[in-house]
Amino acid sequence: MFITIEGGEGVGKSTNIAYIADQLSDANITCIVTREPGGTPLAEDIRQLLLSDRDEAIADNTELLLMFASRAQHIAGVIEPALARGDWVICDRFTDATYAYQGGGRGLSEAKIANLEQWVQEDLRPDITILFDAPITVGMSRAGQRGELDRIERERAAFFENVRNCYLMLAERHSDRFRTVDASETLGRVQASLQPIIAEMKHQFLVRSKT
Amino acid sequence: MFITIEGGEGVGKSTNIAYIADQLSDANITCIVTREPGGTPLAEDIRQLLLSDRDEAIADNTELLLMFASRAQHIAGVIEPALARGDWVICDRFTDATYAYQGGGRGLSEAKIANLEQWVQEDLRPDITILFDAPITVGMSRAGQRGELDRIERERAAFFENVRNCYLMLAERHSDRFRTVDASETLGRVQASLQPIIAEMKHQFLVRSKT
Repeated sequence: MFITIEGGEGVGKSTNIAYIADQLSDANITCIVTREPGGTPLAEDIRQLLLSDRDEAIADNTELLLMFASRAQHIAGVIEPALARGDWVICDRFTDATYAYQGGGRGLSEAKIANLEQWVQEDLRPDITILFDAPITVGMSRAGQRGELDRIERERAAFFENVRNCYLMLAERHSDRFRTVDASETLGRVQASLQPIIAEMKHQFLVRSKT
Repeated sequence: MFITIEGGEGVGKSTNIAYIADQLSDANITCIVTREPGGTPLAEDIRQLLLSDRDEAIADNTELLLMFASRAQHIAGVIEPALARGDWVICDRFTDATYAYQGGGRGLSEAKIANLEQWVQEDLRPDITILFDAPITVGMSRAGQRGELDRIERERAAFFENVRNCYLMLAERHSDRFRTVDASETLGRVQASLQPIIAEMKHQFLVRSKT
């Protein structure tokens, strides 16, 4: 099962990914946790190119192609081998983030992203996507407490508003696989609202184990 | 005018590019010389990712996407601004090299490359492409004298045979813009066979200056 975790800055993805992975491990589900952009040494090197500051402006097309180059490497080196072994994969951001950030945020055409998505992923799509959603004022103030922001985190608030709206639009469009969690709540309440989603995953595991 | 220089390893591209640029400068044609993959600091960083040795195998899709990411940056940062100023651009390798190396050499589908070519370049295509062609035994022995070979140069001879055949096929298919030079000859003879091509370029310059 291929699970992706999505959301803007400071919505608590990392903490909750660890929580979900623990819950699945307790149910004897072998899962690996990985992230995008990154997940292999080369893909992490590409991540560095994407996130580091430089005098040279990165062209929109370059950013999108680097994102999918890193994704292609991650899929070939980590995601597909794990799924082929029967392990579950929990991935911190995947292609929905590209739609939200490069599409919704930066205004790159959805058709361009969809073209690369099909080119790189063929029929690989997440089985479940958990969207941690919060008003951007909540997310940004939390992210700010973590210290220095990277290039993408510093983008203006309007950008993040567009990112959030794009995520919500994707959740509506792909309601079969999206589960949206209100991340503006306390951690205890967020984890409570994860319970039915985790229960659904465990149920899927039992169903799949039997077949 | 957008001029690209193509050919396998050790066919004398660098020497002859300098020669062509000198000849054009003597005719008061302002031209910049650049190369792929590379041509901007970020594109050169991507080149490093492509050519450096690492334990991790680079997936074919990753290699192709990195190549076009570097190309997108090079086009946006160098090639299009130069052409917009009215300068000529002489580029050491361009998309024909991707067809030859990743397509002909590594066997990636031509349709995949064509898709990215259209995606990244829209209607940008070279006006003239000079192909320096030589039997691979000639090119490889010359390249070997330059010292340590990089990852791509070490690929097996069959690979280079496929690269060469793909280049020759492209020259036939795009005979309107391709000019093929026999690079197995002495430098003096190669430069002699460049004369009509350079004359054609100068003629184009005069025609374009008048309009």
